[in-house]
Amino acid sequence: MYVIVVYDVDVKRVARVHRFLRTHLHWRQNSVFEGEVTRSQLYEIKQTLAELIDGDDSVLIYELPRENFNLHVIGTDRNPTGEII
Amino acid sequence: MYVIVVYDVDVKRVARVHRFLRTHLHWRQNSVFEGEVTRSQLYEIKQTLAELIDGDDSVLIYELPRENFNLHVIGTDRNPTGEII
Repeated sequence: MYVIVVYDVDVKRVARVHRFLRTHLHWRQNSVFEGEVTRSQLYEIKQTLAELIDGDDSVLIYELPRENFNLHVIGTDRNPTGEII
Repeated sequence: MYVIVVYDVDVKRVARVHRFLRTHLHWRQNSVFEGEVTRSQLYEIKQTLAELIDGDDSVLIYELPRENFNLHVIGTDRNPTGEII
């Protein structure tokens, strides 16, 4: 499956969440990551995020059956190559 | 088609971009909007965003054939009803 992850977390926890997500997914923009994952990886990602976040933090994970979308970028494409940073 | 829009724009332009997007889509989280659109609406959204943004701003539009995904919310669900605000 393919996931798009968007996080909105307190600035105190941004670095931790970002560091964790980049070990599993491609960074796409500011607070957006993407990538192909297995069901067990998705489960692990959800579990770890639940531990990392706190307070009013919110993370959305869009789980698509596969990478089946067109991506339109308006303005700056922050990571056009899908490079893992 | 169904779109997920994520914006990362300078704070000076956030209010304008947010106001525009909420006239077409459902607000989902901080800088995330979603909704069903026609091809011509998508075109209009892209054109208007290109006019509204500037500098190093970036907006991603994921265009899916249809609303075919599971959404996992970790932490706070900011707008569970999909209410148009």
